[in-house]
Amino acid sequence: MTDTFKLASNSHGTDLPAEPKLELCVITCMDTRINPLEILDINIGDAHIIRNAGGVVTQDTLRSIIISQKFLSTKKIAIIQHSSCGLLSFKDEDLNNELFANTGIKPDFCFEAFSDLETNLIQSVKRILNCPFVFYKDNISAYILDIKTGNLNCIYPK
Amino acid sequence: MTDTFKLASNSHGTDLPAEPKLELCVITCMDTRINPLEILDINIGDAHIIRNAGGVVTQDTLRSIIISQKFLSTKKIAIIQHSSCGLLSFKDEDLNNELFANTGIKPDFCFEAFSDLETNLIQSVKRILNCPFVFYKDNISAYILDIKTGNLNCIYPK
Repeated sequence: MTDTFKLASNSHGTDLPAEPKLELCVITCMDTRINPLEILDINIGDAHIIRNAGGVVTQDTLRSIIISQKFLSTKKIAIIQHSSCGLLSFKDEDLNNELFANTGIKPDFCFEAFSDLETNLIQSVKRILNCPFVFYKDNISAYILDIKTGNLNCIYPK
Repeated sequence: MTDTFKLASNSHGTDLPAEPKLELCVITCMDTRINPLEILDINIGDAHIIRNAGGVVTQDTLRSIIISQKFLSTKKIAIIQHSSCGLLSFKDEDLNNELFANTGIKPDFCFEAFSDLETNLIQSVKRILNCPFVFYKDNISAYILDIKTGNLNCIYPK
């Protein structure tokens, strides 16, 4: 443990309210090349930012959206997935087999790898629309970010 | 749908590699007051950033960490939870009851509300240590961020 990475804080703190000013909840990928605030030209205090591998709407994403809407007054949802995503580079079945071979245990969850970005993005929108606990569903939009150019292409609504 | 929030891209794109330069995976809260890059004084390209309600290690967080380590060469994990978190403000049971009353459906997942920040943070560390599919576990650190002051207090390892 002696070489554990220790983080230093560079923050000066804030008195901003916990409720996002734009009433917006953004879902995007954990990808190191993505800075959601810069991409969307928004600031600290404007939006909730949810990130995971792929920017996929999973059960945990739904949990976060429900809490965001219920307790912190957000009403809008934007999903951003992107070109050259790591989830385009493997198949769940292959990873499952490898992990089973290495550990003797089969993963009991889905890794969410996908082969078509637009299909996967629409699937994420549908997971929100299908969730009975998400209250505000009238203002959902979904985009593909081109990592190389920075272009944001709106896929939903068309 | 006519008033759907449409996002504009302010990004110029990047040629950075997908592998985070610091081999670091950061897990933190979706809170609108948190900018992980600013808090940690790191840049685009340095780390994967995973965010959800609470910065809690959930199954989806583990999914993301496994993908981060397996395909994108990260070896270090830092968890940052924070003061005045929304998850300190309610109880799962109350929210479950309200959602059931409103929809007739009981949530079949946990909302991850908690009453003690330090206990919850250590619990998140233990979820990683207990996951058979996370390969690199020797470099995990966990912090409490004070939102008002920006101070980052290392809770694990002590």
